[in-house]
Amino acid sequence: MVRLDRTADLSLSRQLLDSLREAILTGRLQPGTRFPSTRVLSSELGISRNIALSVFKQLTSEGYLHGRVGSGTYVREDLPENFLIASRPTRGPGSITHAPRRVASQARAIVDSMSAYTDSIMNSSRPFHGGLPALDAFPYQLWMRLTAQVWRRLRPRDFAYGDSQGYRPLREAISEYLEANRGVRCTADQIIVVSGSQQGLDLAARVLLNPGDAVWVEDPGYIIARAALLNAGARLVPVPVDAEGLRVEIGLARAPRARMALVTPSHQLPLGMIMTLPRRMALLDWSRRVGAWVIEDDYNSEFRYGGPPLPSLQGVDVTQRVIYMGTFSKTLLPALRIGYLVVPPDLIRLFSVARRALDLHRPLVEQAVLAEFISEGHYARHLRRMRLLYEQRQRALVSAISDELKGIIEIAPAGAGMHLIGWLPPGSNDREAAECALQHDCVMRPLSWFSLECRLRPALVLGYAAFSEREIANGVRRLARALHETI
Amino acid sequence: MVRLDRTADLSLSRQLLDSLREAILTGRLQPGTRFPSTRVLSSELGISRNIALSVFKQLTSEGYLHGRVGSGTYVREDLPENFLIASRPTRGPGSITHAPRRVASQARAIVDSMSAYTDSIMNSSRPFHGGLPALDAFPYQLWMRLTAQVWRRLRPRDFAYGDSQGYRPLREAISEYLEANRGVRCTADQIIVVSGSQQGLDLAARVLLNPGDAVWVEDPGYIIARAALLNAGARLVPVPVDAEGLRVEIGLARAPRARMALVTPSHQLPLGMIMTLPRRMALLDWSRRVGAWVIEDDYNSEFRYGGPPLPSLQGVDVTQRVIYMGTFSKTLLPALRIGYLVVPPDLIRLFSVARRALDLHRPLVEQAVLAEFISEGHYARHLRRMRLLYEQRQRALVSAISDELKGIIEIAPAGAGMHLIGWLPPGSNDREAAECALQHDCVMRPLSWFSLECRLRPALVLGYAAFSEREIANGVRRLARALHETI
Repeated sequence: MVRLDRTADLSLSRQLLDSLREAILTGRLQPGTRFPSTRVLSSELGISRNIALSVFKQLTSEGYLHGRVGSGTYVREDLPENFLIASRPTRGPGSITHAPRRVASQARAIVDSMSAYTDSIMNSSRPFHGGLPALDAFPYQLWMRLTAQVWRRLRPRDFAYGDSQGYRPLREAISEYLEANRGVRCTADQIIVVSGSQQGLDLAARVLLNPGDAVWVEDPGYIIARAALLNAGARLVPVPVDAEGLRVEIGLARAPRARMALVTPSHQLPLGMIMTLPRRMALLDWSRRVGAWVIEDDYNSEFRYGGPPLPSLQGVDVTQRVIYMGTFSKTLLPALRIGYLVVPPDLIRLFSVARRALDLHRPLVEQAVLAEFISEGHYARHLRRMRLLYEQRQRALVSAISDELKGIIEIAPAGAGMHLIGWLPPGSNDREAAECALQHDCVMRPLSWFSLECRLRPALVLGYAAFSEREIANGVRRLARALHETI
Repeated sequence: MVRLDRTADLSLSRQLLDSLREAILTGRLQPGTRFPSTRVLSSELGISRNIALSVFKQLTSEGYLHGRVGSGTYVREDLPENFLIASRPTRGPGSITHAPRRVASQARAIVDSMSAYTDSIMNSSRPFHGGLPALDAFPYQLWMRLTAQVWRRLRPRDFAYGDSQGYRPLREAISEYLEANRGVRCTADQIIVVSGSQQGLDLAARVLLNPGDAVWVEDPGYIIARAALLNAGARLVPVPVDAEGLRVEIGLARAPRARMALVTPSHQLPLGMIMTLPRRMALLDWSRRVGAWVIEDDYNSEFRYGGPPLPSLQGVDVTQRVIYMGTFSKTLLPALRIGYLVVPPDLIRLFSVARRALDLHRPLVEQAVLAEFISEGHYARHLRRMRLLYEQRQRALVSAISDELKGIIEIAPAGAGMHLIGWLPPGSNDREAAECALQHDCVMRPLSWFSLECRLRPALVLGYAAFSEREIANGVRRLARALHETI
């Protein structure tokens, strides 16, 4: 029943323990079976008596064995009757009732909402992934140096549980940056550091929504964000966009009493237009009248190539109805997983407690490094460099496409962002085009992936920020081969 | 209307832009107002005409101004009527309807569930915080060296969006560790890396529970964990514990069809007993029969001072009903925020997609450092060192208390864990005692904080792992002063 392997990594006592436990669990040693004495067992197995003793002691403390004074050691008889049955899955189904493996109904909906393309694209860094910054132009050396400084500077007590709103110096650096660059009106107290916009939205949805609440979402819009709303039990109300951004009047017609609107006013995702001032004002006016919340996802405002970016919606909202959301995934590195919310003063307590219920707080070290990176001016410098670089890369994409894909992809330069929309001929199928491109090692989302209800001209969403001019040129050549096959 | 400050940090064009925008938003510049020409404006303000031009252009692109060919620049008239009103909060309430600031009803419940003590204790590192490991004994130098190695080794493309289940080498290291040390049966595919047990539980609750589902929770038990269950809309069913752990028969009587049980079998939180084998088997048997899930929170199994820790519940569950949950917050540092779930094979896809909907994935670098730390054997070594250290510290606590608090606190050594229960005289008030201790710079939770319904003898939960013998001795002296005041 027991086989010991003297050449194995595992100690003899561990081997003995495991095999006796296994024998009891599988019923090979029946309840009530008397064990040989430790003296007999140890001589039979050729082990020291101490090993046998410690194993008996352990099995007794685990509840498998029972010692009777003067009469030896037995497998316990008072284990529940089903114990042995439960441990023998090989018995026929007649003997065991297996209840269904029920999960949350919402969980299936989430999986469905993250349909196709998500898996294959998410973790890739191939052209023309639309959500990636220039991984090749990040100042790794500098960041490492700051990291080493931070590790040296922090004291052991700093590594206890931390502030659920985020590391204070980081919150101060963020609020100063937002005030100066985005016209956001806030103090460090209003900042909640989160793990990217996805967690920010998840948090906002949980604090602000009851199951069944209607939420306006841009159509087309960012699919993965919707999963966070579905998680909170929200009912998504698709609201179309036009050249001025969200069509507020359609939202009003469809769900006038919605509880929330999720918008990307500075750079509509994916189409890239800027929400005009009249639309912004109409949205804020609605939110004030009905008591709705506006989530301003300012994911991409930093990259405008002509003039300063538009100030935020939050900055012109005097009734404190806007929750502003930003991320460093697009400006620095996705793998850092740092973003933030700016919440109205009366909601700070709710958000900070709810954030603790999510995952207590963000890891410390990279928050401290980032605080340093911003307050020493490296962040502003990096953004300036990236603006120039992305403008060049955008030009490279536009020119490669007019060289290689004339008549198939229609593309126009834009004054902002990290991707362009490459319009396909009407009547073509953008999902097929994207799948075919994937076969040619080009990774991108079809525009239709972003739509809930709206019917759009077929198009591909082409990211350029993360790729060198050479990678862009080569990628466009591969894409051309792919599209010549399908279109 | 416009005042420029030549000594300010802000550029002149930014000052002009801000003040004109402000004038329009507050109604001082009415819709339709004609602007002076850039030539006149620039000479009046003593600025270059280029500045005036760029500001006009920006305000036009933002939608505030409107240029008519040959007739100058005007404040736009097609702003929504409410625009100016919304921007003037100083007007009487009559003119604006302010809807109530409604939030999720659940959000208030969460705040309530995290009552008292949480804020004051959470972020502290003072004696006798019960949830902290030895921050002073962590190998910071070694960790920094591994961090530098990891930064050098990773390639730019590694910093794109990552695997939502967690960095693969870390998952492999964890599954090997669990197999060898905790009797957990799993592969790296079953591991989901999360941001500590709180996120693990939050994720499990969202994937497995529908609103209204009943969940057995240990009473007393870990309060903050409950917030994650409440978030998912669960109905908490308190189930008392005794010397053998969870009283399964009471759970069966109270909520036989519960959907989930949350247990700490290897070291009950906070009382410290080990769930006996018959109870484990009864729990698994119930879960199999009714189709319930068991969350095994194995938060503290590593610190047993006599003999190897008991193997996990997951390891003896052959019907794959157990979700195993572990954390590095207790074995390494809370500020790392790394934990993991082990999920049954048929739930991997649901958990991994739901985890993406939470916050995509964990930050990369510390996952890679931890993978290295475990696979190079540093983790096992650190745990061995900590076991010896914690045993010493526990002895120091017991001896200081018998010296200073005889007759007031009753305390007994235990074979496991990072805290002990200090029993107070029956009839005393443990909340008052803890608050009074706080005045003497001693941080701890009263045992009653952990209870939902159960009435327990008053006691204090005294952590010892994080404090040197000197800090423990000094802390106990302060605690003695505090308790001599109240008891």
